[in-house]
Amino acid sequence: MREAFHEQLDSVFGDLADVCRLVEIAVRDATAALLQGDAEIAERVISSDATIDSAREKIEDKCFSLLSLQQPVAGDLRVVVSALRMISELERMGDLSVHVAKIARLRVPEVAVPEQIRPTMTRMAEVAEDMVARVSRIITDKDVEAAIELGRDDEIMDQLRRRSFTELLSDDWAHGVEAAVDVALLGRYYERIADHAVSVANRIVFVVTGQIPVDA
Amino acid sequence: MREAFHEQLDSVFGDLADVCRLVEIAVRDATAALLQGDAEIAERVISSDATIDSAREKIEDKCFSLLSLQQPVAGDLRVVVSALRMISELERMGDLSVHVAKIARLRVPEVAVPEQIRPTMTRMAEVAEDMVARVSRIITDKDVEAAIELGRDDEIMDQLRRRSFTELLSDDWAHGVEAAVDVALLGRYYERIADHAVSVANRIVFVVTGQIPVDA
Repeated sequence: MREAFHEQLDSVFGDLADVCRLVEIAVRDATAALLQGDAEIAERVISSDATIDSAREKIEDKCFSLLSLQQPVAGDLRVVVSALRMISELERMGDLSVHVAKIARLRVPEVAVPEQIRPTMTRMAEVAEDMVARVSRIITDKDVEAAIELGRDDEIMDQLRRRSFTELLSDDWAHGVEAAVDVALLGRYYERIADHAVSVANRIVFVVTGQIPVDA
Repeated sequence: MREAFHEQLDSVFGDLADVCRLVEIAVRDATAALLQGDAEIAERVISSDATIDSAREKIEDKCFSLLSLQQPVAGDLRVVVSALRMISELERMGDLSVHVAKIARLRVPEVAVPEQIRPTMTRMAEVAEDMVARVSRIITDKDVEAAIELGRDDEIMDQLRRRSFTELLSDDWAHGVEAAVDVALLGRYYERIADHAVSVANRIVFVVTGQIPVDA
């Protein structure tokens, strides 16, 4: 019974890592669509989101059958519920990538991000993508140290977001209201992707150690 | 055993309705702080969020003890997991109210929302607050019809958000980039509060009927 439980649980975490890799592709493609003003890539991100949504449903069903058939208690129970929460967060990260792709698509053949703020936005996108990539590995390897490190790096995203506001609101800003609103919302989406990445990583710390990291 | 389970479950849903009423107060106060430029009310929203967070922990513990001790299966199991999801969403709605309050505080002694767009923003805030108030009653009464109706009304929020963009991006907009960015982010926060309200209402439909509403 215990062995069956842990085998099925391993399979759930394998599925979670697979979905995280789909999210990683979504974030990367959304950024490419955004920075290149490429409608085709944007469409791909938007239509691929259905794959993440259906993967979510399958993982949820697996978790429910695990809970019903194996009746885990205490720590084991909390691990399965953590998996359910992780899949919700991964799905949400996919949705946020779709939001980025939709802003990209709206501005084609223009590019939503003006040259002036491109370095900061590019950096935000890179940080978000890197965090998601690291989460895939953290899930696969159940790597607590890497998970705790990820939480610390979230500060970088906060700094970038503040920098983007400074740039938007400076007297040098020459791109008007529309571009400023786009950049503010894009910054919010990347920040939320990073927040969810930290949250998923923290759940891995909990799954392995039974403790939620401080400041989580 | 069954009776004990349903008694404890009723108590969890009572607690969820209580938290929803705290969220309702947070949304209302955040809006008051925003439209009046009142730092004191903004501070109250920000500091009160800890109450919602600690209520969340208590409800989670109750749900876990319910799962461990009563070992529900099938429908009953899904109802408890729905309660866990509802409390996450309610907590998130509290966080979004804090985001609104922080923008309000940042602009004191000014008001973040220029007169020109005040009718639309006020309407968005009213719709969000009304939706949260309705969700409290939907949880208490397990009112499926009211829950389904709430889902339909979400379209009103989408229309208001589109209108706010039209106003921001018109040639008449005379309030510059900073106010536009504030209004765009505020619109996003109210829209997300409404999204979560619909999601919580849909979970009540599921809890009562075992079915997730179409378009949910």
